[in-house]
Amino acid sequence: MKIHKERIDLKSTTQIEFLDITNEVQEIVHRSGIREGQVLIYVPHTTMGVAINHNEPMLLQDFMRILYKVVPVDDQYSHDLFELRRETKSDGRSNGHSHCKAILLGNSETVPVEKGQLLLTERQNIFAVEFDGARERDVVIQVIGY
Amino acid sequence: MKIHKERIDLKSTTQIEFLDITNEVQEIVHRSGIREGQVLIYVPHTTMGVAINHNEPMLLQDFMRILYKVVPVDDQYSHDLFELRRETKSDGRSNGHSHCKAILLGNSETVPVEKGQLLLTERQNIFAVEFDGARERDVVIQVIGY
Amino acid sequence: MKIHKERIDLKSTTQIEFLDITNEVQEIVHRSGIREGQVLIYVPHTTMGVAINHNEPMLLQDFMRILYKVVPVDDQYSHDLFELRRETKSDGRSNGHSHCKAILLGNSETVPVEKGQLLLTERQNIFAVEFDGARERDVVIQVIGY
Repeated sequence: MKIHKERIDLKSTTQIEFLDITNEVQEIVHRSGIREGQVLIYVPHTTMGVAINHNEPMLLQDFMRILYKVVPVDDQYSHDLFELRRETKSDGRSNGHSHCKAILLGNSETVPVEKGQLLLTERQNIFAVEFDGARERDVVIQVIGY
Repeated sequence: MKIHKERIDLKSTTQIEFLDITNEVQEIVHRSGIREGQVLIYVPHTTMGVAINHNEPMLLQDFMRILYKVVPVDDQYSHDLFELRRETKSDGRSNGHSHCKAILLGNSETVPVEKGQLLLTERQNIFAVEFDGARERDVVIQVIGY
Repeated sequence: MKIHKERIDLKSTTQIEFLDITNEVQEIVHRSGIREGQVLIYVPHTTMGVAINHNEPMLLQDFMRILYKVVPVDDQYSHDLFELRRETKSDGRSNGHSHCKAILLGNSETVPVEKGQLLLTERQNIFAVEFDGARERDVVIQVIGY
């Protein structure tokens, strides 16, 4: 049984973005040499989440619309006052809503590995979901198995 | 340390359904012979999610009502146009909402195994949650430990 | 490769509460002696969830407001009738909404361990999120690695 960990470096280009990392995760599984086991997809950020679904642009737009209805941008977030007071966020842009969206998605998902392949069906893709871009980001991929 | 993986074959009978797989998961843990470790419950689908909670029918109904309020069926989903154009879905039924609900639940949960038993309290059950049935489905269960 | 499991005993003091368990989880990782691997945070309850985000009180308040908008307390939950009939809940308080909130958050998250440290960035904290307190609770922490 072994463990293999790598980071994927990403650059989001807009505030909200589904970054498809399926190929990068599969390449890491290959490099690990692990044939049977599982892979952890973990986002070490507070305004980014993990999702697995179909990479169909209209569907991703539907999901974002739902998420914006639940967590609107044009709402009052106390956290934005905190950031303003502390001057901890250089761009001064509100991101209270980004944190809330990220919590709803969660920071980790685990996918089995079978015969060296991610156990995904044809329409499943792995996404790091940006809620406060554009930014440089990284995602941690950890493969466990033999 | 070893890894044991099995699939559970399921058949949902309605469009939306909580399929309780607790006993099947426990049986797989038994067959694995693993006494200490953890079990991954993973759904390899885009319109199905995983949830752990009390198998109390009225509660499950409450949760579905909440989920339908957040992601209504009688709404416009761009994804449904995509499916119509591509004719990729033979029944022609809208399922944009099903994908959105599945993303909110997530595809994986992990439960510790202690002395060969799932570490669940009396009222916890493991569900594969169907959002686009009736269909034949499978869920992947992977036990890691010794 | 080894596995190390411990429970964290918690006491929530209000109905809704973000309990920051980051330090306790890090201490368990230290005691495990595991340097490279991952840690599972698992909540064995039906009215409690797991979240990872910034421990900034105003942000946590924002998130709770969102969650209460999605799952209001002053709504009718069929589950509350179930509990009343069965007299299974001694305090008679409605908690249908607590279950629904817990399902949305999920019961487990996994965080990588690197050089004996939780792989968290400066603003990430691990929370057990109470939705039906005040109660005595426990959370299960399981470290896997070498």
